[in-house]
Amino acid sequence: MAQMKIIFLGTSSAVPTKERGLSSIAILREGELLLFDAGEGVQRAIIKMGLGFNRRMKVFVTHLHGDHCSGLLGLIQSMSMLNRKVPLKVFGPAKLDDFIRFNMKILNLDTTFPLQFRRVSEGIILEERAYRIEAIEAYHSIEGYCYLLREKPRPGKFYPEKAKALGVPEGYLWSQLQRGFPVKVSNTIVRPEQVLGEPRKGRVIGISGDTRPHERLINFFKDCDVLIFDSTYSSEFQDKAIENMHSTAKEAAELALKAHVKLLILTHFSARYEDTRILLEEAKQIHPNVIAANDFLVIEVPYTD
Amino acid sequence: MAQMKIIFLGTSSAVPTKERGLSSIAILREGELLLFDAGEGVQRAIIKMGLGFNRRMKVFVTHLHGDHCSGLLGLIQSMSMLNRKVPLKVFGPAKLDDFIRFNMKILNLDTTFPLQFRRVSEGIILEERAYRIEAIEAYHSIEGYCYLLREKPRPGKFYPEKAKALGVPEGYLWSQLQRGFPVKVSNTIVRPEQVLGEPRKGRVIGISGDTRPHERLINFFKDCDVLIFDSTYSSEFQDKAIENMHSTAKEAAELALKAHVKLLILTHFSARYEDTRILLEEAKQIHPNVIAANDFLVIEVPYTD
Repeated sequence: MAQMKIIFLGTSSAVPTKERGLSSIAILREGELLLFDAGEGVQRAIIKMGLGFNRRMKVFVTHLHGDHCSGLLGLIQSMSMLNRKVPLKVFGPAKLDDFIRFNMKILNLDTTFPLQFRRVSEGIILEERAYRIEAIEAYHSIEGYCYLLREKPRPGKFYPEKAKALGVPEGYLWSQLQRGFPVKVSNTIVRPEQVLGEPRKGRVIGISGDTRPHERLINFFKDCDVLIFDSTYSSEFQDKAIENMHSTAKEAAELALKAHVKLLILTHFSARYEDTRILLEEAKQIHPNVIAANDFLVIEVPYTD
Repeated sequence: MAQMKIIFLGTSSAVPTKERGLSSIAILREGELLLFDAGEGVQRAIIKMGLGFNRRMKVFVTHLHGDHCSGLLGLIQSMSMLNRKVPLKVFGPAKLDDFIRFNMKILNLDTTFPLQFRRVSEGIILEERAYRIEAIEAYHSIEGYCYLLREKPRPGKFYPEKAKALGVPEGYLWSQLQRGFPVKVSNTIVRPEQVLGEPRKGRVIGISGDTRPHERLINFFKDCDVLIFDSTYSSEFQDKAIENMHSTAKEAAELALKAHVKLLILTHFSARYEDTRILLEEAKQIHPNVIAANDFLVIEVPYTD
């Protein structure tokens, strides 16, 4: 059972406040850190949360506004100062590669680890054993992407009585079957599906980055267990949301409702909201399960199946 | 009497810690903010200290390592978001201009205010009515500068009895004389030196940036009221100080003693020092008046004359 935690490292939009840093959301999954955006100050938030600079890690940048990617420079510098050896993959729009390369050169920044860049376009951008990452274009003022972390199905429930009936001795062979591998018992192959129930669904987490709501995003975020969505403004500033290509809390909730999202988390708040209750209230009138993020909020994501 | 405060916005070297942000020192003088270096997170420290983004301000960058200049990007972005109109002058090595221009372009960052860059070389780099800024090359791994803020002499003490004897009526004309301007009394010119004592010295503040100690710096920082100096290591790591071209607390104190500095402030501490007492103690054995900086430490600098 892989533990999964969402850790908010920065929840302010554009300008930080005393209480909120710039955009960054970490998902800690089986010891790996998946970082969505790296606003200024992210390395300090990582230190504060004790997440470490040497762990398995990937970074996904939504778009090239400074409040979403400037923190990458300090993050890369500190990883090198601390002698990181583990490769780091950074995913983002094509120009992110220029941003990193130019700044590393002018700031005399060498890495102690392989730094790999992957240009993002719509579709599956990463395929791992247990999960994949999908991307879709955001509706923002510059090229940007929304991301989806989709866990692959886990093997179904294990039935010990079925294993016993087939003569599989308790121990290593059981755990192999539980993990989905066939085993050999007195010259007979026992296949996992003979002792397991139906495969169980993985978890799906959506991250909007900066975007207007859009019909296509409803489909992209369909049935998310958790959707973290741009909620820069309350409805009072609907005109600003349209002008600056962000969403209101109400729009985030409407989209989450249509997409049958189980839990909506509002983030990326305009600095004008010292208190985000007004945003939370307007979203709650539409969607039954909403949280407003704060810096250093940690959400455990359980399996639903 | 112009008030002068030194405000430490970041006191860690290279990597931030839970307690210390990256390099930045502000001097607040007659409502103007002089910022020496702008490490990642500086805009948030400015917010925390209530210094504001719209005031008269100049930035002096010592060198182009990320921990000394990356925070400029977020600072410029936030100033624009908040619609700053006051021009901002940024002083630094030639490549700083490329750093700013490239990043503004790739991050789609427009300013709402005139942003002017001044390339620094040795000598007087800024001449204002009441002070000037001088620069000297630092002894570091890349091109870098140490800076000196030197206030010009103030008019001497005012003697009311002399003014009365010369027939100058109390009020506006007295204040003109006190400020160093001649006045006309019944067709006679009264010159300020007739009613004032000797001109009084201004204050001198030195900021080292990242540097090894050097004979030339002793002369540059001669008779500083306050010297803020690179104290990355304790003497235990003298070899690292040499290798990385920084100073130990002991070396900072030796230089300050030779330069007849009145108050030495240690800063730019390696992240290994959660407690800086070891650095302070080794400096105090050499110089009689030493402080170790912390983030958000505020030092008022009185006139000594």
